[in-house]
Amino acid sequence: MFEQVNKAAPENTVPEYQRTCRLDINNPQHVLYVVGTSLDVSIYRSAPPGSKSFSVKCTSQVNYSFSPPTLETSHHSHIPLDNNTTLLISMDRASEFENDSKLSVRYYNENKNAIGVAVLHLTGVEIFLDVDADRDGIVEENNPNKGSWKWGPDGYGAILLVNCDSESTRSKRPDLLRSRISNMSDLKDMSPMKLRTRGPSHLPEGYKLMMHICLGDSEKIRVFRSISSDKRGNSSTVKNLPLVLGPKVLSQEVPYPGDNAEMDFHVEGLEFPDADFDGLVTINLSLLKPLSDGLPETPIFTDTVIFRVAPWIMTPNTLQPEEVFVCRTTDNHQFLKEIKTLVAKSGFKLMICNPVMNRGDRWIQDEMEFGYIDSPHHRFPVVLDSPRDRELKNFPCKVLLGPDFGYVTREPQSEEVGDLDSFGNLEVSPPVTVNGKNYPLGRIIIGVAFPTAKYGRNMTKVVQDFLWAQRVQKPIALFSDWLVVGHVDEFMTFVPAPDRKGFRLLLASPDAGYKLFRELKNNGHGQARMFDVFPKEKQTTVDELLGNRFLQNQNNYIQSCIDWNRDVLKKELGLDDEDIIELPILFKLDKKHEWRAEALYPDMVNMIVLGKNLGIPKPFGPKVNGRCALEAEMCSLMGGLGLTCTFIDDYYSYHKLHGEVHCGSNVRRKPFDFQWWNMEI
Amino acid sequence: MFEQVNKAAPENTVPEYQRTCRLDINNPQHVLYVVGTSLDVSIYRSAPPGSKSFSVKCTSQVNYSFSPPTLETSHHSHIPLDNNTTLLISMDRASEFENDSKLSVRYYNENKNAIGVAVLHLTGVEIFLDVDADRDGIVEENNPNKGSWKWGPDGYGAILLVNCDSESTRSKRPDLLRSRISNMSDLKDMSPMKLRTRGPSHLPEGYKLMMHICLGDSEKIRVFRSISSDKRGNSSTVKNLPLVLGPKVLSQEVPYPGDNAEMDFHVEGLEFPDADFDGLVTINLSLLKPLSDGLPETPIFTDTVIFRVAPWIMTPNTLQPEEVFVCRTTDNHQFLKEIKTLVAKSGFKLMICNPVMNRGDRWIQDEMEFGYIDSPHHRFPVVLDSPRDRELKNFPCKVLLGPDFGYVTREPQSEEVGDLDSFGNLEVSPPVTVNGKNYPLGRIIIGVAFPTAKYGRNMTKVVQDFLWAQRVQKPIALFSDWLVVGHVDEFMTFVPAPDRKGFRLLLASPDAGYKLFRELKNNGHGQARMFDVFPKEKQTTVDELLGNRFLQNQNNYIQSCIDWNRDVLKKELGLDDEDIIELPILFKLDKKHEWRAEALYPDMVNMIVLGKNLGIPKPFGPKVNGRCALEAEMCSLMGGLGLTCTFIDDYYSYHKLHGEVHCGSNVRRKPFDFQWWNMEI
Repeated sequence: MFEQVNKAAPENTVPEYQRTCRLDINNPQHVLYVVGTSLDVSIYRSAPPGSKSFSVKCTSQVNYSFSPPTLETSHHSHIPLDNNTTLLISMDRASEFENDSKLSVRYYNENKNAIGVAVLHLTGVEIFLDVDADRDGIVEENNPNKGSWKWGPDGYGAILLVNCDSESTRSKRPDLLRSRISNMSDLKDMSPMKLRTRGPSHLPEGYKLMMHICLGDSEKIRVFRSISSDKRGNSSTVKNLPLVLGPKVLSQEVPYPGDNAEMDFHVEGLEFPDADFDGLVTINLSLLKPLSDGLPETPIFTDTVIFRVAPWIMTPNTLQPEEVFVCRTTDNHQFLKEIKTLVAKSGFKLMICNPVMNRGDRWIQDEMEFGYIDSPHHRFPVVLDSPRDRELKNFPCKVLLGPDFGYVTREPQSEEVGDLDSFGNLEVSPPVTVNGKNYPLGRIIIGVAFPTAKYGRNMTKVVQDFLWAQRVQKPIALFSDWLVVGHVDEFMTFVPAPDRKGFRLLLASPDAGYKLFRELKNNGHGQARMFDVFPKEKQTTVDELLGNRFLQNQNNYIQSCIDWNRDVLKKELGLDDEDIIELPILFKLDKKHEWRAEALYPDMVNMIVLGKNLGIPKPFGPKVNGRCALEAEMCSLMGGLGLTCTFIDDYYSYHKLHGEVHCGSNVRRKPFDFQWWNMEI
Repeated sequence: MFEQVNKAAPENTVPEYQRTCRLDINNPQHVLYVVGTSLDVSIYRSAPPGSKSFSVKCTSQVNYSFSPPTLETSHHSHIPLDNNTTLLISMDRASEFENDSKLSVRYYNENKNAIGVAVLHLTGVEIFLDVDADRDGIVEENNPNKGSWKWGPDGYGAILLVNCDSESTRSKRPDLLRSRISNMSDLKDMSPMKLRTRGPSHLPEGYKLMMHICLGDSEKIRVFRSISSDKRGNSSTVKNLPLVLGPKVLSQEVPYPGDNAEMDFHVEGLEFPDADFDGLVTINLSLLKPLSDGLPETPIFTDTVIFRVAPWIMTPNTLQPEEVFVCRTTDNHQFLKEIKTLVAKSGFKLMICNPVMNRGDRWIQDEMEFGYIDSPHHRFPVVLDSPRDRELKNFPCKVLLGPDFGYVTREPQSEEVGDLDSFGNLEVSPPVTVNGKNYPLGRIIIGVAFPTAKYGRNMTKVVQDFLWAQRVQKPIALFSDWLVVGHVDEFMTFVPAPDRKGFRLLLASPDAGYKLFRELKNNGHGQARMFDVFPKEKQTTVDELLGNRFLQNQNNYIQSCIDWNRDVLKKELGLDDEDIIELPILFKLDKKHEWRAEALYPDMVNMIVLGKNLGIPKPFGPKVNGRCALEAEMCSLMGGLGLTCTFIDDYYSYHKLHGEVHCGSNVRRKPFDFQWWNMEI
């Protein structure tokens, strides 16, 4: 069958408007005509020998014209025969009965005697395969744009969700992996599609309707047909909805509803856009004309609809939280208590993942990323499960997946999964405009090695492919390989702001750190000590810290790494210097980890952002008049934006284990009000 | 390293314009500056404690400004310190010597006493990676569009050829498969690229230039560096041109030419566009700044160029022939003689493939398709070898491949190769305009099964993928599975015409055949016989033929198959009925081949088109006054277009073996004058 390798192929294969139709003076022809097309008849081809002129006669519902236009004084006049004359036949509406219309061509010899007559018996039908191409949640009739897809507010084209949630709360696999529809409620995850026909109650003998799809697209969707309305529509019958198209089912006959009936279909997405899938799926409905036994039926009319699979969309810190996730471990009682207070104060839901599920893995940020999928008819959150797969690996699928909570993952087949595959290394900016180009859903941010590096850690290709293929949040690759853990959330985050672009980019800055420490020294606090509440820790004084040239050199290097990222972010997010706030954070290099960096004290930029409340790793910095100078600086910087800082002690439970508050938490947020299909791409 | 999965990624990773630069009041900084960028310095970040104002001083070649603009009465005045003030530094041209420019920032306390000074020693360089982005055959300097690619007459972006010819006439594999450049002449198949620099004779210590490419692109090209001009440029040294980038070589240091020198590179394409390769390749040149031993160097400037690999282009019948190919077999002496005469008369070159090479396989049309590749610097023919691979399989590679004659093939890995994979099933239309969309190179035409067919023969996916991926001759899929052999050249061809669109589509037409035979009967020639020169053949009379209802029914079906294709061609090529000529050709169905069709008498549409001379299978039709009525009709139809028909006897040597003149010949034609990159896509 047709291998429609290319998305453009379907349009090649469908004669949408004109169909060549044979006349035969020996046999009256019975023709099924589809309203909206035209029949193209060569008058000359079937003229009997000796024909010099012809005339045309037809019943009232039939229209005809000539191409090129021929002088015709009346319908019954003799028109000279020309070997290029084509008769174009159409009908305005569907027939009530089979063969209720008729057209005949009478041929005359030079003496104007009739020498043959060719008769067409016509049956008109209307056939529409319909979808919600105008994106208002309703399947309109025969939208002229239903066969194409356009981005933007003046765009069109239907939308499909990947059915990646699970209607069953017991079974822990997405609905798309089940062979049958489990529940009536599953139908709302699918896109409605309707077959609408008008015409006689049955098609003429041998004609049939065939729904078909190309090989590549057949792997991406399933189409189910609704059972007719006289049967019960409850959950015991929904399991038996017939599968019309799907993997390995490239074509299937569908019943002709007859009269003015319509037939409902449910289209289910099976795969997200990816490197080898642009997200577009074409479904065809063809009317087939019988020829002879053993010969393939000819498609004489094809209606086509296009769907785009909705992308997976991430939610930046500027969106309102709905649910906060943290892990309970044997050693994080104090941390949990402080998080609980913060979340309660902020008025959001807190979900604690217990030790049985997390098995000691507290890095819930790294295991998964929350996002959502959206369509005009339905929307639900979808968790992207990281290929990291440490002890928390079952959490996204076992706990989160459920009714209206989807699940998707990408795991490399041969490549090893590395540090940079954790989703602390996957963030998203708030909406931005860059040189006039709008990113109303922001841009995804990941961390990798320098493009010029001969060696270096990277995020696995299958995850990068997935992120790029979603298209609506075009990713930015930063340089994070300079860090021991290697995650972008170790040096950057975004917080909401009342002015400018509606947010600030916060960057860790050793220079800002040294500046603060130098000011402390200058103001007579050179003997103030770091970590003075931890008797077992080395309590470095400000003077000692400033006197350590080795540490200063390391931080100069680290500042240049962060500055490289700062330059990329400014350019790719269209930021000005005023959109960036640098936080006083020092790092140190670890010889054991090939001189990669980690924070010297709790890394304040690795915070949780809950509306106007920030949960910040408590830095335990040197105190001035009893108050931590780092906290004071942080409060001053954030206070200017109307944000409240809550400093959370994560020192032993997270910081000493190479993570902080952000690494140890996760937030599900409200989706954007902006609908992704209204983007200009 | 960066996995630049997406073509858009490179731009993400390169801070093209602004680079954040640190000031340090304790250490003068040595900064390498690239002309055209700007250094972005935070005045505040490195201010010593107690700073209240600052002043800036610089040498004559240095320019600076503030962002946001600051009131500054003179260069030496005291400017109040603001924590958002950024100093933007640039230079107009390259330095003559290292550190020949300087800028200093002096900080003052509230008493306007200087309390610190930060010094930048500046060295300016100019660095351009240059290509022929304006497509005039010359590598211009720093074309502003060199980093992007645009189709059309106002387009830009450099072009790359796949080095698929063979400089060596002995070795029979394309140059791209050799590990070294075999010959100086091979360089003209590659695209020139230049590294141009201005500045001191050496880069400051530790700085280096690195050329790099992403993993996906690295498989598609090789970059060789020219040896410096003081060495001999002859063929004994060309083999030693160093490989800079290529498969498994993702980055490589390149020498800094120094002063105003330039360095030549040669870029070689290794792969044609295909399903997984859009044809675009990005090459980056980065300037790396040293940090410390064991730490990766930071890229501080990147210049980027983009190439598009030239597509493989087919040549329609309307282009002038250059060389005609036929096979000599033990039984085709007469055919060869007639072909020789026709080709000689037309004034073209004839190449006869001898029996040692063809081993009895006469279907040279099916084994290969001629095309070419084109760029502003070079152009040559390229044969696409069919996966068919019968006895002629070595011909394209062993005979055709050579200097400036390229070779490409696509063979399926697991799928079987079938009838529809022969290149009699691969044709191309003349240039057309369809609903305002121009196809100045025509459109490729292939034959497959109906899209609605449950079973059917197809052209193998790898060849279809290849054809679609070339983009400039967007393919049309016809229905050819109704034929025993299954090739589009059995029912259609194109001939040049002096009027209208410059060509006519010729279609086999059973209806036109029956019309002609009925007229013969009507004019008293009912007893005229087919094949009357062949005593051993059944010599059917016109009456017998018209009386065979079974044959008539078969031909009605066949006409409807051809009409389906006619409708698709009209729509996809934007044809009117007047652009189509129907040739009187009857078919019959073969029960042994699942009722598929073959021509009843030599299939006149399967012709060779040599300018205004057509070599047509001699139909041996019924004679009227000693002249074959089919030939007479053909001459009449073609004569109207100024074309001359030569009827070639292929009856026993080709027709009875299920092929005709076109199947048994092939034509290499002149490339289009139109350059593919000027297409609007």
